[in-house]
Amino acid sequence: MLHEIPKEEILEKLKNIGAKKVLIQSPEGLRREAEELAEFLEKNEIEVILHGEINYGACDPADHEARLLGCDALIHLGHSFMMLSLEVPTIFVPAFAKVNVVEALKKNLHEIKKLGKKIIVTTTAQHIHQLERAIEYLKSQGFEPVVGRGDNRVSWPSQVLGCNFSVAKVEGDGILFIGSGTFHPLGLALATGKRVLAVNPYSGDCQWINELAERFIRKRWAQIAKAMDAKRFGVVISTKRGQLRLNEAKRIIKLLKDHGREAKLIAMNDISYSKLEGFSFDAYVIVACPRVPIDDYENWRKPVLTPREVEILLGLREEYIFDEIPGGVREKDEPLGISLHSTR
Amino acid sequence: MLHEIPKEEILEKLKNIGAKKVLIQSPEGLRREAEELAEFLEKNEIEVILHGEINYGACDPADHEARLLGCDALIHLGHSFMMLSLEVPTIFVPAFAKVNVVEALKKNLHEIKKLGKKIIVTTTAQHIHQLERAIEYLKSQGFEPVVGRGDNRVSWPSQVLGCNFSVAKVEGDGILFIGSGTFHPLGLALATGKRVLAVNPYSGDCQWINELAERFIRKRWAQIAKAMDAKRFGVVISTKRGQLRLNEAKRIIKLLKDHGREAKLIAMNDISYSKLEGFSFDAYVIVACPRVPIDDYENWRKPVLTPREVEILLGLREEYIFDEIPGGVREKDEPLGISLHSTR
Repeated sequence: MLHEIPKEEILEKLKNIGAKKVLIQSPEGLRREAEELAEFLEKNEIEVILHGEINYGACDPADHEARLLGCDALIHLGHSFMMLSLEVPTIFVPAFAKVNVVEALKKNLHEIKKLGKKIIVTTTAQHIHQLERAIEYLKSQGFEPVVGRGDNRVSWPSQVLGCNFSVAKVEGDGILFIGSGTFHPLGLALATGKRVLAVNPYSGDCQWINELAERFIRKRWAQIAKAMDAKRFGVVISTKRGQLRLNEAKRIIKLLKDHGREAKLIAMNDISYSKLEGFSFDAYVIVACPRVPIDDYENWRKPVLTPREVEILLGLREEYIFDEIPGGVREKDEPLGISLHSTR
Repeated sequence: MLHEIPKEEILEKLKNIGAKKVLIQSPEGLRREAEELAEFLEKNEIEVILHGEINYGACDPADHEARLLGCDALIHLGHSFMMLSLEVPTIFVPAFAKVNVVEALKKNLHEIKKLGKKIIVTTTAQHIHQLERAIEYLKSQGFEPVVGRGDNRVSWPSQVLGCNFSVAKVEGDGILFIGSGTFHPLGLALATGKRVLAVNPYSGDCQWINELAERFIRKRWAQIAKAMDAKRFGVVISTKRGQLRLNEAKRIIKLLKDHGREAKLIAMNDISYSKLEGFSFDAYVIVACPRVPIDDYENWRKPVLTPREVEILLGLREEYIFDEIPGGVREKDEPLGISLHSTR
């Protein structure tokens, strides 16, 4: 197992709240851990249902499903709490990776130095438990690392989501991203305009992101161009509560109508083109998770844009801007471990 | 448009209940009609959201989503009401096909006669509005047509669903099915053991089903054989309210455990194998819509069974039996047109 689930601790929390029947929700990478946890809880007389839907983030807790299924608690594996009201008490179990972040920084010190001295340090929830050690190490090497607090869509300072780069909007020479994949560092580059170096603690490699970001923007301009003559737009929102941006969708629909286009509001849960094929829209705008139009556009036979790209399409904006979902002011950080959030 | 949606009538009903904002839910075949209805309602000052999820039946009304999205009514296109409690007032708009059923019966009279004199007449919701004419015609040709009342999972006498063949469980020489596709007549043959002739009013063709049913049973036995050595079973239920068979799933889990197998309960909305790939189960049992394991099994890389097939697997049943979802006693039939159902 790549991730260790604190089973005893979860059981104790369940006993504290008197939960007898729980739903376990998991992302694709934690399916085996979910099964193992189910096994353990069942041996301890807790009735368990595994949630079969794949979860992509704390923006989509299955608390409603838990209540519907008669469960008195939800266990949400893989993510920390996001500010949402919940229908049943929910235990959030973030998954911290067991790779050594400082080793990867050491290996790439030469490149990191090119960022400058005052570097904004960012990472994902998987590595947040090693942030302090990373900061110490960077300080020992003469850097002045900057940790951005961010808003309440994230759980901790320095944490980025695919839809929120608020922690990087601080002063600094350049951005160090610690984590895997290109989506987060790409978002960082686009959301801040700063130089971004991504250090991957799994592979030990690093990658400069800004050239990638330029290629990305060219691709997005091509999508915008393809939608230029579209007359009828489907503006898609998601019923996943942490992605439900109804007001933003209404703003986009008004913009489109004010500029002589037609637009209809479409609501769904998991957004995919195959479900929409029967409709006759010329183009789509996704006002939900920004990853949908950006990561998945090759599977769409119609142009598919972010709300920000619609502003460009209509001539209301010149510079490319990344679609983010902002939060409010965060009162306190989440614990670096499991946390129980009650209904309100 | 293949189907005519009674737009004015729907608008009137919405005005009667004071609805200002509605969600329109539609099956794949009625997407354009949904758009057209949205256009019409918007022109009449009703705010509209289109539901982007594909709907497969009245077993899955989007009333919860409607409430979540702040709508004060749901319009459910394509199906009549199924006995479920609703979170917002819902207008059910069945879709009646414009093909001529009697013409198709005339064309296939020679084959229909082979069924015998006392024939059980069955059809789907699409053709139910022509049932009376079909009965009259059959009587005029010397038949003694039998119309089964069925239970309250269906809306009208003679109506079959993919999960309910209660209308056919009456006395008669053989079964006449009027409709398209092979799933319903296959279910009729398997649920009753009677000879079934399917007359397709779209193509005008007819097909004897019983040979198909034998081939089908052989395929299902092959699935059962593939699962024979499976140790760990995922027993899958759906959160679609009209498919939520929690007690049946618990019965199956108990049966499996009593016979030395392991079993875990999995809940999801749309059931598909791709979402379950990360789990380590050896085989799956679908305790939801019977079409999932039967129509879709080729997309599963693990054996996938119905609850009834588990009984065969465990040696508790010898004869093949179709998985049905039974209803209770129906108090009255649904109207042959739109109907408004309130929250209770």
